[in-house]
Amino acid sequence: MAISAMEFGSKAVAKSMASSCSTRLHLPTVASSICCARKGKLRQFCVKTGGDNCKVSADRVHGSKMNEVVHGIEASLTMGNGTAVLQDDDGGVMHTYRLGRFVEERYVYRQTFVIRSHEIGPDETATMETLMNLLQETALNHVMSSGLASDGFGATHQMNLRKLIWVVTRINIQVEKYSHWGDVVEIDTWVAASGKNGMRRDWMIRDCSTQKIITRATSNWVMMNRETRRLSKLPEQVREEVKPFYLDRRVFFDGSCDNEKIEKLTEETAVNIKSGLAPRWSDMDVNQHVNNVKYIGWIMESVPVNVLENYHLTSMTLEYRRECRQSNLLESLTYLTAAEEDPVNVNTSLHSIQLRSTHLLCLQEDKAEVVRGRAKWKCK
Amino acid sequence: MAISAMEFGSKAVAKSMASSCSTRLHLPTVASSICCARKGKLRQFCVKTGGDNCKVSADRVHGSKMNEVVHGIEASLTMGNGTAVLQDDDGGVMHTYRLGRFVEERYVYRQTFVIRSHEIGPDETATMETLMNLLQETALNHVMSSGLASDGFGATHQMNLRKLIWVVTRINIQVEKYSHWGDVVEIDTWVAASGKNGMRRDWMIRDCSTQKIITRATSNWVMMNRETRRLSKLPEQVREEVKPFYLDRRVFFDGSCDNEKIEKLTEETAVNIKSGLAPRWSDMDVNQHVNNVKYIGWIMESVPVNVLENYHLTSMTLEYRRECRQSNLLESLTYLTAAEEDPVNVNTSLHSIQLRSTHLLCLQEDKAEVVRGRAKWKCK
Repeated sequence: MAISAMEFGSKAVAKSMASSCSTRLHLPTVASSICCARKGKLRQFCVKTGGDNCKVSADRVHGSKMNEVVHGIEASLTMGNGTAVLQDDDGGVMHTYRLGRFVEERYVYRQTFVIRSHEIGPDETATMETLMNLLQETALNHVMSSGLASDGFGATHQMNLRKLIWVVTRINIQVEKYSHWGDVVEIDTWVAASGKNGMRRDWMIRDCSTQKIITRATSNWVMMNRETRRLSKLPEQVREEVKPFYLDRRVFFDGSCDNEKIEKLTEETAVNIKSGLAPRWSDMDVNQHVNNVKYIGWIMESVPVNVLENYHLTSMTLEYRRECRQSNLLESLTYLTAAEEDPVNVNTSLHSIQLRSTHLLCLQEDKAEVVRGRAKWKCK
Repeated sequence: MAISAMEFGSKAVAKSMASSCSTRLHLPTVASSICCARKGKLRQFCVKTGGDNCKVSADRVHGSKMNEVVHGIEASLTMGNGTAVLQDDDGGVMHTYRLGRFVEERYVYRQTFVIRSHEIGPDETATMETLMNLLQETALNHVMSSGLASDGFGATHQMNLRKLIWVVTRINIQVEKYSHWGDVVEIDTWVAASGKNGMRRDWMIRDCSTQKIITRATSNWVMMNRETRRLSKLPEQVREEVKPFYLDRRVFFDGSCDNEKIEKLTEETAVNIKSGLAPRWSDMDVNQHVNNVKYIGWIMESVPVNVLENYHLTSMTLEYRRECRQSNLLESLTYLTAAEEDPVNVNTSLHSIQLRSTHLLCLQEDKAEVVRGRAKWKCK
């Protein structure tokens, strides 16, 4: 199981970011921004409603009491190594530049991005890694802005007391259209319960110029003890913290999400194998684990170059099974097959799915599985 | 010689971006934005002065006539495959999201960025690659916004007629402070003549919260024929195009820039050698060349992990000598030495330079030099 973006940079949170953008119940069009408290340096933030400067605070979100959320315009917020006093000016700046805010009565967090020149690939469109990075950024800012953040990327106060972190177990991303350099996209994200012990996080990417949905993604998360690295049940206290933010809405219509188990690929069944893949220093996150987005690059290493050149990924599903560290040497396996149009998938039914692939990233030494993957491709 | 960011994505420009943010002479506080013309789809843009909606246009910048720049609120702009009609609304949006504008009477282009979660490294601060990527993005937007852009990233109309592109030959970047996730930085960039046939581009990064300059960088560029791949003199017509934008200002004070020749490292003199480095598909740009920022990761591959863990780069100079393609296998060589405080360097004199290093990236096959590098490090 890979350590997710949610754990990525756990120490950074205590040092650098916190927020308490709490609002009175069901206030529409609330623009909330980020508060940063760093070593001996204070960052301020504001909560604004609509266009005026009215600052609001509350201890309830969606009818549930918020745990340990410091709120109110004059409140002091002790977080990590710093203390932040809520103010207006600087926070306004933070909001302006981050371009993130809560929408839909705080159930949905929305952030706007411009695709940068280094985020496009050889085909001049945003890469799958770029999309996943932007999803990660939006998810983290959602948690930071929710007022629940404690020590640990995405960890709540109750999680932190129990040394628990979120880890991603599975993600499915389906892309209708890839953006170009300079395109403006808007990413919505929200969370929901997933079974007894999990959380689901969905994302939706809109092209700002057309307002069309161009990408949908869903992911599953569970709890892990950050010291023992063992999975944990979802404690009731944590459930109470996150429940007020749950929104029972699915980004994928019935049947359009790739929920099926990914079959295991072996050296016998794989057609393309690339060995000797060594994580670079820059692939590591603050916990010396490989960031989960980086796996995509290694998966692509065993995809033939003519496929990468001539096909777009329209769907990718990743199942994270094991952590990877810098000392690990990886092997990337791919099995490619031609495929017909997929009438079941409403998101991709407009174009023919011309290739399907199965992937496996494993440790070279003992073939232990790190990530299983499945993808669909269409001709560019 | 590496193909620079300026060439990176040449086709993309014709398809996707152009601008004619022209203004009347010496208008202060002009906010200019980007115009995108893509296949059969029009993007609009506006030019605003100060806070009002007054739209302005001109055919002169700094007293020199602009070549082939289409201007004026009602003007049609033929660019690449599309025709853009200048309008207000959409352009306002573009400016808001890109956060870039001309300042100082259009001699300086300024863009604001928020450091994203995936742009920080294991030590929780923005990586050197991130800084270089943001410099690249600012430089490209500068050219796109100048009204000079033709077919080719950073290529002017006169350059395009002659199949010329800009290539970077050398860059020196000096970092005082690395930013954290969520920090807001402001990057200024401008260009100047460099000798008879070159151009210099300088950058300055400010921390928005303190307004302190935290990074300075300077680079040298020359012309290359994009088909023959041979260097070219700077044609007079191109000089006339770019001259109005030249600003005779140096980001480094005398003596603080690393201008010295980088000594050649060999397998005999290098202490650390890492062989078998293979460019990944995602390292390629639209021309199937390795993007010049990617070299940094390979250079770091031969730097001992304890140095990467415990030291910050305070200065890095790269001399690009040869293009690199995906089929090339690279070798990374590093020579490290302890160093005393450097009283000559005003930018770094406040802290002890504790390590210095020399680097070489070469083709594994014939040891042909790709990039020479030199760096300074200080303890974190």
